[in-house]
Amino acid sequence: MIKIAMLSTGEEILHGDIVDTNAAWLSRRFFEEGLALHKRSTVGDNQFDLVNELINLSLNYDLVVVNGGLGPTSDDVTAEAAAEAAEEEVDLFPEWVEVMKNYFRRMGKEMPESNIKQAMLPASSTIIDNPVGTACGFTMQINQAQFFFTPGVPREFKHMVDSRIIPAIKEKHTETESKEVSRMFTFGLTESGISDLFKNIHLPDGYEFGYRSSLPFIEVKLFGPAGDMETRLKIMQIVYSHLGENVVSVDEPILANIQALLAEKRLVVSVSEQSSGGYLTSWLHSNEKLSDQLGASWVMTNKVQHTLAEQDPLAAALALAAAIRENSESNIGLATGNMADGKVAFGLSTPYGEWGQIVSLKRSYEKEELRKLYAAIATDMLRRHLEGKPMFGEYASVERVRELFVPASAL
Amino acid sequence: MIKIAMLSTGEEILHGDIVDTNAAWLSRRFFEEGLALHKRSTVGDNQFDLVNELINLSLNYDLVVVNGGLGPTSDDVTAEAAAEAAEEEVDLFPEWVEVMKNYFRRMGKEMPESNIKQAMLPASSTIIDNPVGTACGFTMQINQAQFFFTPGVPREFKHMVDSRIIPAIKEKHTETESKEVSRMFTFGLTESGISDLFKNIHLPDGYEFGYRSSLPFIEVKLFGPAGDMETRLKIMQIVYSHLGENVVSVDEPILANIQALLAEKRLVVSVSEQSSGGYLTSWLHSNEKLSDQLGASWVMTNKVQHTLAEQDPLAAALALAAAIRENSESNIGLATGNMADGKVAFGLSTPYGEWGQIVSLKRSYEKEELRKLYAAIATDMLRRHLEGKPMFGEYASVERVRELFVPASAL
Repeated sequence: MIKIAMLSTGEEILHGDIVDTNAAWLSRRFFEEGLALHKRSTVGDNQFDLVNELINLSLNYDLVVVNGGLGPTSDDVTAEAAAEAAEEEVDLFPEWVEVMKNYFRRMGKEMPESNIKQAMLPASSTIIDNPVGTACGFTMQINQAQFFFTPGVPREFKHMVDSRIIPAIKEKHTETESKEVSRMFTFGLTESGISDLFKNIHLPDGYEFGYRSSLPFIEVKLFGPAGDMETRLKIMQIVYSHLGENVVSVDEPILANIQALLAEKRLVVSVSEQSSGGYLTSWLHSNEKLSDQLGASWVMTNKVQHTLAEQDPLAAALALAAAIRENSESNIGLATGNMADGKVAFGLSTPYGEWGQIVSLKRSYEKEELRKLYAAIATDMLRRHLEGKPMFGEYASVERVRELFVPASAL
Repeated sequence: MIKIAMLSTGEEILHGDIVDTNAAWLSRRFFEEGLALHKRSTVGDNQFDLVNELINLSLNYDLVVVNGGLGPTSDDVTAEAAAEAAEEEVDLFPEWVEVMKNYFRRMGKEMPESNIKQAMLPASSTIIDNPVGTACGFTMQINQAQFFFTPGVPREFKHMVDSRIIPAIKEKHTETESKEVSRMFTFGLTESGISDLFKNIHLPDGYEFGYRSSLPFIEVKLFGPAGDMETRLKIMQIVYSHLGENVVSVDEPILANIQALLAEKRLVVSVSEQSSGGYLTSWLHSNEKLSDQLGASWVMTNKVQHTLAEQDPLAAALALAAAIRENSESNIGLATGNMADGKVAFGLSTPYGEWGQIVSLKRSYEKEELRKLYAAIATDMLRRHLEGKPMFGEYASVERVRELFVPASAL
């Protein structure tokens, strides 16, 4: 297996002013190509630290992608550091000066003197073309590793990786096998709860589980060899049978599943929110296609809450769900009720009847976590209804204190 | 100077499934405390790679913060790797088992067997309490470096860093000088635009500017020695005079400023959304105190949009702002109109009259960026009204194509 590392450079990334999205992108892109990274690191614009890390990587990895520090300003020191790490000089590459001059000419401009620096590369390096900017990439050998140096501007970086670097690596390392990942998204389970459920599943060689929590959801991933669809499906069936109705979607996030379920039946859902303060509506709208299945939303606060709180909270949530459904001429109405004494009511109004539940929290949450949790519980009621699953799920994080079903015939 | 590194662990970070926001947060937080990072690295859940990197860091740095891999599942191997790097065993720490049992007891549950693993720590380590989760942190010496091992869940991680790790480092390394940071949040300017505005400001020794974009806002930071309030205020005044009405808040995010402005006059704002799809309401509610100043919200989609789009879009946005204001008996109504041909209308209805504008986009955006931009423009109108600033700002990213003011006397 080729050992692959990535090195990001730049004070802004090191000190957290910018989140390193290039690194996340490259990792994911390489992983799909069967080129899983073994390590990523970040250093600042300090030449000493940079040389140190380049040498360190050159002795421990086979392939290293370096990102950033190829610009024309004095804090761009990557080319000099690469030359120093390889114990050679930087040379002027006149062919790149020509490319830059043409680039500026097309914009009707003279090339600024400072850009010459971008054609000063380690003597042993080979230029990698950058058709969308003035920083060329370059590749060179340092000790046991082949290095690819790439510009920091995301558009230029991604273009160079896709069009030059991945093809070059694939051509040289024909043995790389792409990995495949299958995913299930769950709601209502904890990571340790899932791991307990799985403890009797023995995976074949080459397969492994991964977990990713984007709370309140937990994504279960199955990594394994690409191509063997039969084994993969068999394992996923076993996984599914262990997770049961807590699976909210397979190989796509829950909203994509909700969208497909609604679109298939051409249903429109409207929303009435109290405890979730607009989060549910905003979240549903974050899926562009799902917007087409959404009617209107109301978000209510203080004054309205006080009036409603005097009623039975479960009846109030059901009334809100029914009212938004009728008022906006939607097929389904979904409501998050007022929060009082750590308890929240949820209501779902449909042509088949109304379902309501009150849940109480088992631990304390920050406000933003709470809004996400309430939105997830409401959406899970909708999902269960659309999938014909039992309407009231078992959720590790909350306890259901009341539930109610009013069939259409009784309304 | 203490040399500080951070190591993030986990396949999902290494392979780009999650952007490593903990790393960005820690870098920033440490930088403000005068603890600038020299290096960050990321390895997967592979124990061999992890041990390698721990040893590597232990020989080259004084302080290392390790994040992630302390969970109860089999792919959480950080504690084992730490023990191996230090050439010692993992031991059961019964005091942490007790803490976890109590934690589950409070939720009315038995502790799952798998959680025992979270109390298996390197023999020489000292527990760092985690009051908000089941993964304790721990600290230990490996070679020349002191290591702090921390849980991956952001809330638990940040809490531990703030309440335990930074105080511990500060106590031991009394020579570190905290930098002081002042902040101004701006809307409507670009980073290079701000940097151009600042090019004639000559800062005294020890002071420097930093920029952080959390789009569509750009945060301007002034780093400098703690304590010298007079110099700092003088510089901030100069900065303020260069940024002018584009400053949306000082030393607090814009929502905190809006909250203070509304609370002071005991005003209630209600919102009507089309193009922003609930994002504006949800964002306003994300500030807990601000919720008290919010009335009701409507979020409308498809059908309603089609009807309204036939009207003049500016008149429609003003009508929506006025309608939500009256219907919810609020002092102020704020509306984002329908989006058509890359143009969006905004309306603000107040007791002093109504303001409306139509803006067109200067470049293309992803949908989520757009919703944030629209919410920011609407909120900036509200901010300008409350602060008595000119109502129609100059925004680098959009062009205003129409504006309208209808005084109360004409309504």
